[in-house]
Amino acid sequence: MRINSDRLYAALEQLGQIGRYQDEETGLQGVCRLALSAEDGDGRRLVLSWMRQLALEVRIDRIGNVYARRAGRRNEMAPVVIGSHVDSVPTAGRFDGCLGVLGGLEIVRTLNEQKVETLRPIEVAFFTDEEGCRFGTDMLGSAVACGRLTLEYAYELRDRDGLRLRDELERIGFLGECDERVGPPHAYLECHVEQGPILYRKGVEVGVVSGVQSISWQALTIVGKSGHAGATPMDLRADAGVAASMINLKLREMIAGGQYGEMRATMGSLSPVPGLVNIVPGRVEATVDLRNPSNELMQKSEAALLAYYAEVEKAEKVEIRWRQTARTPAVAFSSRLQERIAAAAERGGLSHQSIIAGAGHDAQEFAAICPAAMVFCPGEYDGISHNPREFSTPKQCADGVNVLLDVLLQLADQEEL
Amino acid sequence: MRINSDRLYAALEQLGQIGRYQDEETGLQGVCRLALSAEDGDGRRLVLSWMRQLALEVRIDRIGNVYARRAGRRNEMAPVVIGSHVDSVPTAGRFDGCLGVLGGLEIVRTLNEQKVETLRPIEVAFFTDEEGCRFGTDMLGSAVACGRLTLEYAYELRDRDGLRLRDELERIGFLGECDERVGPPHAYLECHVEQGPILYRKGVEVGVVSGVQSISWQALTIVGKSGHAGATPMDLRADAGVAASMINLKLREMIAGGQYGEMRATMGSLSPVPGLVNIVPGRVEATVDLRNPSNELMQKSEAALLAYYAEVEKAEKVEIRWRQTARTPAVAFSSRLQERIAAAAERGGLSHQSIIAGAGHDAQEFAAICPAAMVFCPGEYDGISHNPREFSTPKQCADGVNVLLDVLLQLADQEEL
Repeated sequence: MRINSDRLYAALEQLGQIGRYQDEETGLQGVCRLALSAEDGDGRRLVLSWMRQLALEVRIDRIGNVYARRAGRRNEMAPVVIGSHVDSVPTAGRFDGCLGVLGGLEIVRTLNEQKVETLRPIEVAFFTDEEGCRFGTDMLGSAVACGRLTLEYAYELRDRDGLRLRDELERIGFLGECDERVGPPHAYLECHVEQGPILYRKGVEVGVVSGVQSISWQALTIVGKSGHAGATPMDLRADAGVAASMINLKLREMIAGGQYGEMRATMGSLSPVPGLVNIVPGRVEATVDLRNPSNELMQKSEAALLAYYAEVEKAEKVEIRWRQTARTPAVAFSSRLQERIAAAAERGGLSHQSIIAGAGHDAQEFAAICPAAMVFCPGEYDGISHNPREFSTPKQCADGVNVLLDVLLQLADQEEL
Repeated sequence: MRINSDRLYAALEQLGQIGRYQDEETGLQGVCRLALSAEDGDGRRLVLSWMRQLALEVRIDRIGNVYARRAGRRNEMAPVVIGSHVDSVPTAGRFDGCLGVLGGLEIVRTLNEQKVETLRPIEVAFFTDEEGCRFGTDMLGSAVACGRLTLEYAYELRDRDGLRLRDELERIGFLGECDERVGPPHAYLECHVEQGPILYRKGVEVGVVSGVQSISWQALTIVGKSGHAGATPMDLRADAGVAASMINLKLREMIAGGQYGEMRATMGSLSPVPGLVNIVPGRVEATVDLRNPSNELMQKSEAALLAYYAEVEKAEKVEIRWRQTARTPAVAFSSRLQERIAAAAERGGLSHQSIIAGAGHDAQEFAAICPAAMVFCPGEYDGISHNPREFSTPKQCADGVNVLLDVLLQLADQEEL
């Protein structure tokens, strides 16, 4: 059994028309459907109309998550849930999130066409504000559904203009009445674009996602002493820019050393003040982004970095202040589901490899309450994402969804995992 | 013979009232007398009125430089010139430049009081647009006077608003009629605040300036590849921020190695794009400021740095484009004048040391046509300058001017150097 790749792609195109804009930087058409914006409302209603065309039973919960249910032979059994999100970052493409939701609907459409019945019910879901761009907390809807965050916390979040999340949910017509806490599904599956270069560079067709990395973000303020670049002798300097550079290269050294496993690290922002050619920077604001699939090695790397800050303070006569701006633990996906995904790829004649998720996904919230897993599809242009250049071919999209279909059929027909 | 320190300081205070503003950052009163602004015109007129009170013969040349002459016994002989400037950067204190001009006038006032005659005439001068902040070329007036730049070049310079330098000279009433090329003086002397921390930190009262460093400025554009900080494996990165950090630390390494002499180096500006916590910087604009009292070692350091850029391009898979944005050679001041300055400090019971000028000064232009030298006075707060916090005490100012008086009396009475 295979999904209809053209039909899936046409749906992605159609949803991508909502919130479209002309991107100045790339010259391409981008998508902007910020969570709970009017455009998000329009996008949600389009998906809802498709759900109803498929005769699914739709329910909306109190945080605006939408579940569309296809009945099984035994509807008292826990469903298999396929989910993702349809909100976007301000400068998005058409695939991030949407592929998982529309892929789920295409699977249901295929099952309907083929008149396939399953033992368990199947639900296709999309979750509120996965991106976190507008209200500051990502995976919000799935986190509330799975119990990590409370409804009250979510309702009181405000955007930059002071608009309250609950009011915005109501305004776009998605303040539902169903209980926001979801009963543990039999399993949770999500298909998503990789948003990274690994599959693309290696020409691998399917990524079997092993889990989500732990994330640790720090905001650094490095205080040195401004001085005239010509008149300040080297031994009297306290150059905040040099201190930041030392930290940036230390991150590379830590990774090269190998003792922190699959650590990734980035200094994405670094702003020397005053930032003039002939002034020694007296102050730098910088950021550090650490990732690690191992919680233990993440902690070890954080400790090593803090120890290094003390070294830099001494060596460069600067003061380094830091604060944690984000910290999430690593999540491992169900190994049994990973095995099934890999086997399904094999059966489909698709190359596959294990891959860690670089970004956060709704699946990691569900991993707390049920076996969860993800399939990654490669993206062109090194898998660029959160950018109008984000692009996966019809085949790349269909490969991932077909693997999901295979695994879903197994899971939906089993009594136990 | 000693100058009147209080009188000198009162004159500095009075000139510092013109163009004063309340500085938001420091909470202090700053000075803004940009070259050829209305405030510069007012400042110039105040100094002119003092020159005339001292019965000096004032002439204004075609680039707006002002010379005030005190006759000697033999007026056909070349004068000893004491000069500096009264224009300022936008966020200045009261000392930079003004000390040299008002110190010169205080010397004349002292000679007048003491009824001292000299063999040679003495001229106190101030030069147009030493700072270069408004029209983009520093030491402009003295460079035209000494022949490095032409009058035509200077006249056509425009400020940010498109205003032409010649028109602005005329507007403030300082488009003089005298020949802009100055006849070679017997000697040129300048007293200036150090604008650096060396004298202050060591508690040394007088700096005997050995020369001006060579300056080399580069603007770098480093092009790597943006990527998601979580999803981009380390081995597929081309991080422009890491490349910039490598260059920043290489500068330190070159200096520590010692093979480039008294090299100083600064990466004052470094801007990663897009500059977000979770994006690998795909592009960086950065600057490099190199200084060296040796022209030969400057060239050697520039060559080494370019070779290192090629290494970084290879190591980090980035492209490094650079362009020279400024390049001036080192200037050595007259060693005989340096000896006389040191001896005068000794006679005055003042501690002194040889020091290289960190910034550019009018004296370096005169060094091309006559023996020239400078005396540095220490500044509080590590000699901070180009800032309202710039501050030298009455004694610090008077020490330098007294040394200049001593040397001037010798030079003005000699037939030959």
